[in-house]
Amino acid sequence: MTSPTEKPVKKVVLAYSGGLDTSIILKWLQTEYNAEVVTFTADLGQGEELEPARKKAELLGIKPENIYIEDLREEFVRDFVFPMFRANTVYEGQYLLGTSIARPLIAKKQIEIARKVGADAVCHGATGKGNDQVRFELGYYGLEPDIRVIAPWREWDFASRESLLAFAEQHQIPIAKDKRGDAPFSVDANLLHSSSEGKVLEDPAVEAPEFVYQRTIAPEAAPDKAEVFTIDFEKGDPVAINGEALSPAALLTKLNQLGHDNGVGRLDLVENRFVGMKSRGVYETPGGTILLAAHRGIESITLDRGAMHLKDELMPKYASLVYNGFWFSPEREMLQAAIDYSQAKVTGRVTVKLYKGNVTVIGRESPYSLYDQDLVTFEEGKVAYDHRDAAGFIKLNALRLRVAAKRDLRG
Amino acid sequence: MTSPTEKPVKKVVLAYSGGLDTSIILKWLQTEYNAEVVTFTADLGQGEELEPARKKAELLGIKPENIYIEDLREEFVRDFVFPMFRANTVYEGQYLLGTSIARPLIAKKQIEIARKVGADAVCHGATGKGNDQVRFELGYYGLEPDIRVIAPWREWDFASRESLLAFAEQHQIPIAKDKRGDAPFSVDANLLHSSSEGKVLEDPAVEAPEFVYQRTIAPEAAPDKAEVFTIDFEKGDPVAINGEALSPAALLTKLNQLGHDNGVGRLDLVENRFVGMKSRGVYETPGGTILLAAHRGIESITLDRGAMHLKDELMPKYASLVYNGFWFSPEREMLQAAIDYSQAKVTGRVTVKLYKGNVTVIGRESPYSLYDQDLVTFEEGKVAYDHRDAAGFIKLNALRLRVAAKRDLRG
Amino acid sequence: MTSPTEKPVKKVVLAYSGGLDTSIILKWLQTEYNAEVVTFTADLGQGEELEPARKKAELLGIKPENIYIEDLREEFVRDFVFPMFRANTVYEGQYLLGTSIARPLIAKKQIEIARKVGADAVCHGATGKGNDQVRFELGYYGLEPDIRVIAPWREWDFASRESLLAFAEQHQIPIAKDKRGDAPFSVDANLLHSSSEGKVLEDPAVEAPEFVYQRTIAPEAAPDKAEVFTIDFEKGDPVAINGEALSPAALLTKLNQLGHDNGVGRLDLVENRFVGMKSRGVYETPGGTILLAAHRGIESITLDRGAMHLKDELMPKYASLVYNGFWFSPEREMLQAAIDYSQAKVTGRVTVKLYKGNVTVIGRESPYSLYDQDLVTFEEGKVAYDHRDAAGFIKLNALRLRVAAKRDLRG
Amino acid sequence: MTSPTEKPVKKVVLAYSGGLDTSIILKWLQTEYNAEVVTFTADLGQGEELEPARKKAELLGIKPENIYIEDLREEFVRDFVFPMFRANTVYEGQYLLGTSIARPLIAKKQIEIARKVGADAVCHGATGKGNDQVRFELGYYGLEPDIRVIAPWREWDFASRESLLAFAEQHQIPIAKDKRGDAPFSVDANLLHSSSEGKVLEDPAVEAPEFVYQRTIAPEAAPDKAEVFTIDFEKGDPVAINGEALSPAALLTKLNQLGHDNGVGRLDLVENRFVGMKSRGVYETPGGTILLAAHRGIESITLDRGAMHLKDELMPKYASLVYNGFWFSPEREMLQAAIDYSQAKVTGRVTVKLYKGNVTVIGRESPYSLYDQDLVTFEEGKVAYDHRDAAGFIKLNALRLRVAAKRDLRG
Repeated sequence: MTSPTEKPVKKVVLAYSGGLDTSIILKWLQTEYNAEVVTFTADLGQGEELEPARKKAELLGIKPENIYIEDLREEFVRDFVFPMFRANTVYEGQYLLGTSIARPLIAKKQIEIARKVGADAVCHGATGKGNDQVRFELGYYGLEPDIRVIAPWREWDFASRESLLAFAEQHQIPIAKDKRGDAPFSVDANLLHSSSEGKVLEDPAVEAPEFVYQRTIAPEAAPDKAEVFTIDFEKGDPVAINGEALSPAALLTKLNQLGHDNGVGRLDLVENRFVGMKSRGVYETPGGTILLAAHRGIESITLDRGAMHLKDELMPKYASLVYNGFWFSPEREMLQAAIDYSQAKVTGRVTVKLYKGNVTVIGRESPYSLYDQDLVTFEEGKVAYDHRDAAGFIKLNALRLRVAAKRDLRG
Repeated sequence: MTSPTEKPVKKVVLAYSGGLDTSIILKWLQTEYNAEVVTFTADLGQGEELEPARKKAELLGIKPENIYIEDLREEFVRDFVFPMFRANTVYEGQYLLGTSIARPLIAKKQIEIARKVGADAVCHGATGKGNDQVRFELGYYGLEPDIRVIAPWREWDFASRESLLAFAEQHQIPIAKDKRGDAPFSVDANLLHSSSEGKVLEDPAVEAPEFVYQRTIAPEAAPDKAEVFTIDFEKGDPVAINGEALSPAALLTKLNQLGHDNGVGRLDLVENRFVGMKSRGVYETPGGTILLAAHRGIESITLDRGAMHLKDELMPKYASLVYNGFWFSPEREMLQAAIDYSQAKVTGRVTVKLYKGNVTVIGRESPYSLYDQDLVTFEEGKVAYDHRDAAGFIKLNALRLRVAAKRDLRG
Repeated sequence: MTSPTEKPVKKVVLAYSGGLDTSIILKWLQTEYNAEVVTFTADLGQGEELEPARKKAELLGIKPENIYIEDLREEFVRDFVFPMFRANTVYEGQYLLGTSIARPLIAKKQIEIARKVGADAVCHGATGKGNDQVRFELGYYGLEPDIRVIAPWREWDFASRESLLAFAEQHQIPIAKDKRGDAPFSVDANLLHSSSEGKVLEDPAVEAPEFVYQRTIAPEAAPDKAEVFTIDFEKGDPVAINGEALSPAALLTKLNQLGHDNGVGRLDLVENRFVGMKSRGVYETPGGTILLAAHRGIESITLDRGAMHLKDELMPKYASLVYNGFWFSPEREMLQAAIDYSQAKVTGRVTVKLYKGNVTVIGRESPYSLYDQDLVTFEEGKVAYDHRDAAGFIKLNALRLRVAAKRDLRG
Repeated sequence: MTSPTEKPVKKVVLAYSGGLDTSIILKWLQTEYNAEVVTFTADLGQGEELEPARKKAELLGIKPENIYIEDLREEFVRDFVFPMFRANTVYEGQYLLGTSIARPLIAKKQIEIARKVGADAVCHGATGKGNDQVRFELGYYGLEPDIRVIAPWREWDFASRESLLAFAEQHQIPIAKDKRGDAPFSVDANLLHSSSEGKVLEDPAVEAPEFVYQRTIAPEAAPDKAEVFTIDFEKGDPVAINGEALSPAALLTKLNQLGHDNGVGRLDLVENRFVGMKSRGVYETPGGTILLAAHRGIESITLDRGAMHLKDELMPKYASLVYNGFWFSPEREMLQAAIDYSQAKVTGRVTVKLYKGNVTVIGRESPYSLYDQDLVTFEEGKVAYDHRDAAGFIKLNALRLRVAAKRDLRG
């Protein structure tokens, strides 16, 4: 199985969910690579208990000291989600990158553990057609350039779901009843979002069935009364809801609940994968959808025009970098440096209204507001805005157009 | 009033709405400039009758041959609105540019009339603090570089609303009762949108009152049942609703009705004006909001990734150019050339669902679809996608990161 | 040799130079693939006779009707080089892309021939570490998506130069004496440029030896007297030298001679390859270096500022696309549409001075000049430039900075 | 003279060169504004003695405590020139921004002095048609938003050079003989460059006469022997020449001398001014021209591709911001943050060769080099570059093009 030019793998850190697929991978690493497996299971807010993963790893023969379980929710939100939201990041105009942003953190932790335990390889369970394999592996290589990467879905010979299950049975891996048949779609989830794709979603002409949604109720099912609350920002990051200070993960959890209850954050999208094909996904990002609107709201009064327009111009590139897995790249970090610089005064309070799927910013205020009522009012104010300045402003902005028009009119 | 270095104005084409303000301007041009006034009144879908404007112009002494009234709705939508929507244009992440996009067309028509009637000047009723003065005047100058531009709000000496009204009374300009007092906010409208700003909207911390909305009912007031329909696109432009072919203006009118009825298209925004200050506006763009979502929907299956990402990167600049009044500029036209080039295969059908303020694309299909179910499926298909290609793809994308990581790890 | 999942190759169109390497490939295709080989040899101005390639192909058993030889010089310059120069294209600030721009044309011709002769495969002689393999293959796939691509350097098992030569001897391929040993560097050449890389150039700290230069004499060896001449442009393309109209290829040939004689166009560069590593190359682009300077010269008086700045902002992306092999991509074509749009009035005459490696534009004139001596003169002119307009222009440009400064000063 | 709405000016800080024009301004401020004048004279390396300016100010009645003279050369190069060169900044493809970069520093110092002496106004001697007025005033307003700005050339009534001279004579301002007549062109100079424009340069079709050049000898007059030396960089800034550590100003002075002696750094350009017209200038930037080449040289081996390409894409905007006077703007600072971030490892040594106007980088080396000879060599190395990875890399890069080609081929 291992390439003749590659050395045998001794110890491998596996991103392990405790589910059937990564359990099969675990066993496959043991049997095919004859490698010592170290499991890493992270709580990124996917909404599953972690202790069963420990149990299962033990059952599959992993030594207790080789089982790593970590609650990464605060780090995830603070160091990955919030920096990305400072940029108002959306991929292809719409996608809030909930899956993309989680991968670099998992990769980083795997590398940290590999260094600690002296592992020579890391392994993930992403398939060969998706973006996640790229995101994991660019993370691994960008942090530990000589690490050996094992991507079972690209390597092994299982030709079908059946042969996978046969392997599982052969190795006494427990198979939950509902995993026997094909899942009607596949899911990824963390504190920022839940994504669904495949199978019942594969025809983009057909509406996504209601049962794929997991993080939000339908707008139709949401209350008839709007929910209004405030979010406080400091230097571009949200810090409190209705005046109550919350840690990053607690705040996002709270926003998720608010979004969930009001049918906020559903997206049905055909997107372009980095590996070259289009795919259709259904995303639910209840808290993130609120956060994007609220962040734009607080920026609207605290951010200078030049800064805002530059951010808007840089954002699509930033979004592509995150989507494509280049979180740990010099250019993403350069863009982040520019974006973070802009957020020094993005501080204040936004009032948000949720109603059956709608997120509306209905108020914004800030001690650092650049909105100047005296300037904008129709009344002549005490402020030194002289209407005649506009004449000169227009004349010089028009000058090049006039010269060109003269040229063009004369033939 | 006229500058000593400037020649007297003989004939001036005024953008005339028939309302009180432009009637005062009309009279002021006659009395202060002693100029022959030619009125131009356009139907851009603002929702007002035009014949009263003719009556009023006649009443104010305008010769019948100097009264120009034109229905520009089809030209407006076909040559201005639709080209802009091909770019998925939003200013500062949110504003659909409903006011901005109408100004160049009015300017163009004024210049055409000025040439026809031999006028030496044009005049508009935009104030000295806003963007519209810039948009009108860049349009004038860009098309007719030596035209004389009169901007009464920057020139005259009326210090208050009272003195304006006194001038109106003095010249027998009829004043509707409700114009006696101050309007609680000011409005601009056309077939694409309605905007409201000023007075009751000036504090961005305070929610916009329901009475400012004119084009949409509130989501809360919309039906409890979703409205589902299809939009057909050809080369990037919408051409039919539910299979019924419609002219550009008829189609947008229909979308406006659909949006209105379902509470779609409201936006409460603090934006950055080109003249330098922030202002708060409430926009209603019911049909445009649907169109943007639907256009992104049809692009999602028909547009190549490279083209889409390039469009997304160019869009903020395009939006700023339109917002700032540079419609008739070489750089806007260059960007349009690129955008239009991309739309050759943006043809197909999108299914849209409206529900209480939400616009959701629930289906897309096209004879030119680039979505390939065989490629994306989890099943190994007949298609030549080899999972092992991904390994090489990742390896070479990672190469520079690995080299840099080695460098950085060694010190 | 062929992958078990791939069908046998019947007929393959080989990009054939007549040199040793592509002759080995030819024979290898016959022996390993058992395929009928069609050779394609193009004159792109590389400065070699083509008839020897025909002879050699015949000698290696290629049927006369399977030997394609074409003079592509005019098409190369007209449809590839000139469009690229309209964009003032330089990769990484310096490289004029002489190799990159030739590959798509060769790929296009190979595909055309493959269609004509019913070939099911194409083959090139680029190595597995370079950019050219990417450029060839993206061209093939972008034009004929199901074509089979054979890249011998990535496929075969020759472990060394020696084993290659042994294969050549075994198959009676003539080996020129100077090819027995290792070349001190490798060369690519066409009408736009000559590039050298490898071996003696591999240490970027060491100056390139004089003997690698082939297209230019050293500045030190150039005449002591400057050469001054004019270039006429029409719509962005050069059309005449010293008033003499010349075809694209003839014009570039003439500029190459002028550049050669005056030591113009040498570049010693470390660049970033698309496949991920840095490499060092020596490029000689005598005519292109002159053309870039002259094109900027004529644009400087005929191109509007907005158009020029937009071009400058788009150029790096355009350059990367060409460098990376995405000539036949929607996004390159979109950018080209924008660039070409801008060139409508880029017509006129530039006077150029060459002196020992220097290219200086010393004069520019055009019937479409936007340079207005009356506007720019220190004397108050008849032109409507009012100094006081500048005050308003500055005031409104400063407004947002002032508001922000007030905010920041108050804390 | 002062506007009725503006308060009288009490104390004004004048950017004072000691020359005729600013002496006239000084006197005019005293007589027309009746203001106390504080003079500020800076040594930015323009190559003039400063003490005569003190003498002249005293002669014109300025109190000694109101005369500020400062040597800003180190601050100028360290905090303005070098940061700009980190971005490889060129305006419109060619101009090294020598004038633009000096203005914000002067503005900053005037504001500092104004605060110290309690002045309510600042004054500069830039004309109403140029860019410098904008650069000065955006600097003033961006740092001290309520400062009163006096721009005599836009305000006063002198209709001709003669009336200016008459005013000078009337107020006993000494007039050097050579200032009686019109200068054949105007000059601006500082440690980075010298610029010449106007009069004899106004026809862009006519070659600039040799006598306008001041900072460089002609290439023709330069030595027949090349000059070769090294420049050491640390974190993107040059720190030593031929191994000798030098302060920023000393280093640039040294490079200027080297450039001067070898005919390096001349530029004859038609550029687009921010105020809307094209102008022709002759620039001499001997040291800067060398620095740009050398900086690109050290970046070529130490900067990651993603970082370099991002820098190249951002540069045109950065250049426009500097040119247009937006040094003290949030968006320039954001870009600077990104650029500075990229320079952490831009450290090493570049070998430069100067010869009769040519600057050639002939060697680069760095402890942080990303150039990997093992990777790039034609020999199969120990490095993990697998040629077969390229196949997958190309296949997935081609995938979207193939899907689109299939679509397009089927019609």
